[in-house]
Amino acid sequence: MDKTTTKTVLAIDIGGTFTKLGLVNREGQILNSKVFNTKAKKPFSQFKEKLGKEIQLLISTLYSPEDLMAIGIGAPNADYKTGEMKYPPNFSWGTTVPVRSAVVSVIDRPVFMTNDANAAALGELYFGAAKGLDHFVVLTLGTGLGSGIIVSGKLLYGHNGMAGELGHVNVVPGGRQCNCGLKGCLETYASVTGIKRTVFDLLAESNAESVLRNYSFKKLTGIAISEAAHQNDVVALEAFDRTARVLGNKMADTVAHLEPEAFILSGGLSQAGDIFLKPLQKYMEDALFSAYKGNVKIILSASASHEAVLGPAALAWQGLEGP
Amino acid sequence: MDKTTTKTVLAIDIGGTFTKLGLVNREGQILNSKVFNTKAKKPFSQFKEKLGKEIQLLISTLYSPEDLMAIGIGAPNADYKTGEMKYPPNFSWGTTVPVRSAVVSVIDRPVFMTNDANAAALGELYFGAAKGLDHFVVLTLGTGLGSGIIVSGKLLYGHNGMAGELGHVNVVPGGRQCNCGLKGCLETYASVTGIKRTVFDLLAESNAESVLRNYSFKKLTGIAISEAAHQNDVVALEAFDRTARVLGNKMADTVAHLEPEAFILSGGLSQAGDIFLKPLQKYMEDALFSAYKGNVKIILSASASHEAVLGPAALAWQGLEGP
Repeated sequence: MDKTTTKTVLAIDIGGTFTKLGLVNREGQILNSKVFNTKAKKPFSQFKEKLGKEIQLLISTLYSPEDLMAIGIGAPNADYKTGEMKYPPNFSWGTTVPVRSAVVSVIDRPVFMTNDANAAALGELYFGAAKGLDHFVVLTLGTGLGSGIIVSGKLLYGHNGMAGELGHVNVVPGGRQCNCGLKGCLETYASVTGIKRTVFDLLAESNAESVLRNYSFKKLTGIAISEAAHQNDVVALEAFDRTARVLGNKMADTVAHLEPEAFILSGGLSQAGDIFLKPLQKYMEDALFSAYKGNVKIILSASASHEAVLGPAALAWQGLEGP
Repeated sequence: MDKTTTKTVLAIDIGGTFTKLGLVNREGQILNSKVFNTKAKKPFSQFKEKLGKEIQLLISTLYSPEDLMAIGIGAPNADYKTGEMKYPPNFSWGTTVPVRSAVVSVIDRPVFMTNDANAAALGELYFGAAKGLDHFVVLTLGTGLGSGIIVSGKLLYGHNGMAGELGHVNVVPGGRQCNCGLKGCLETYASVTGIKRTVFDLLAESNAESVLRNYSFKKLTGIAISEAAHQNDVVALEAFDRTARVLGNKMADTVAHLEPEAFILSGGLSQAGDIFLKPLQKYMEDALFSAYKGNVKIILSASASHEAVLGPAALAWQGLEGP
């Protein structure tokens, strides 16, 4: 690991599967990084210990600890005021998880924390595909569906910092069971897990031949569905079309709220390419209120999965500099 | 009409049925006002002539025309940048209606113009039920459904000033025909017109006795439905329940975008009282994502129909003073 003398922030992205740490400078360069398994179904105390060790290892690579200016944390259901994760679905860490205090006990710096997708939106604004945009929405289409909303160049926090949970708008009243306790949430349809569920719906509904009939639910991946679709597998193609229709329709609803100039898509589902993006654009456009038609772009995030720390890094820099 | 020496703004609220004008001071007192029939299905030139005359009459009541500081206009589908109404449904005035220039040709003052429901939101913030709130959404449940969104104490304009068209989020794909050209828009269900349509659905579906079987669609009013419901008419009660369910579910979606502290309801449908508000609160609460449950209020607007000019008046004062 390289020693460095640049001013940096420590960025931490806590995901349901992996936790990513990075030292990031003001230009968005990741000077050093680390990924470890979150083990979200094990107790928080275990995660806390592992995180503490990894933070200390990473800081030890700095030329001087004084180069570390602040800490940014992106985590599901993060409350930026209290520094806690609140009722995080997919985690067995309890209803109120004191993440900020866990970090501060290791290294005492200003800590800024928000929802992982909110952080991703700031990452796009500072270092990514949204440079120069004032009004946009980031959708992270991974295991779940996360969202971050930028209005007039600022993150939309809402009354208690919990705005932008578009994964939990309703698609079908009484529809698919969501980890959040509701039914029919958008993320149960428009995410990697969502398209897997749609594939299984389709395999049950139709008699069509499909390579996807060889997969168990556990073994099926977004990449497998995407590869099948690119081989013209009818089930895979229909799954992308249905997913695009559901998401495109809801994106039109989001436009009716916020009138963004663009959506920025990231995460596994967004990697499928035109097979997903073309119908998505069409379904959104068809559902747009007349005043919005033709005015809303869909842009793919340019940042790779290992760059997830850029979001919390942008949050930390913004926290230091003011919005 | 009283002569007055107070600094005032001229406020104009253009509705599908009535156009309301008022001279309003900084305290939100309506010093003088006028209402006329909009005649939205006649040519715009006719409206323009009538509006010009009424403005001149109203200004002639001022002690001095120099007391008039600015003009605020609220109108459906208003573009605050261009000062035009864009594709206003329910109006036969064309796709681009130059309202601001029509007003400036009569009286040359700074003119601020926005969507009627956006103006209503500012009216609530300056003079109404939302004083002291930072994050809220106004829903006007009249002939259609209008909305105005306040984020961090400011009107949410969006990229082209067209944010906040919640009347056109989708409830039922391929559902009821909306005047905007789409199908299944929220305002075709959750508005005075929407509940009338729901009553007619119910009269067709069931054999239940109902006083509402005596009304033609044209004669049926929101007040008649409300009165029937208060007499325990089963069709009327079910119509309010269905309307509340649709609206409550969509309000939960809006919370997932914006995390407001409150919704403020105005317009005919909101006047029905607990028969509508109780199920509305319940359906919204049931559909809220866990982090929001119990944190979002529903408040009735305190301003009466004749006070619709307070919205555009607040817009004008805000325009003069800066946000």
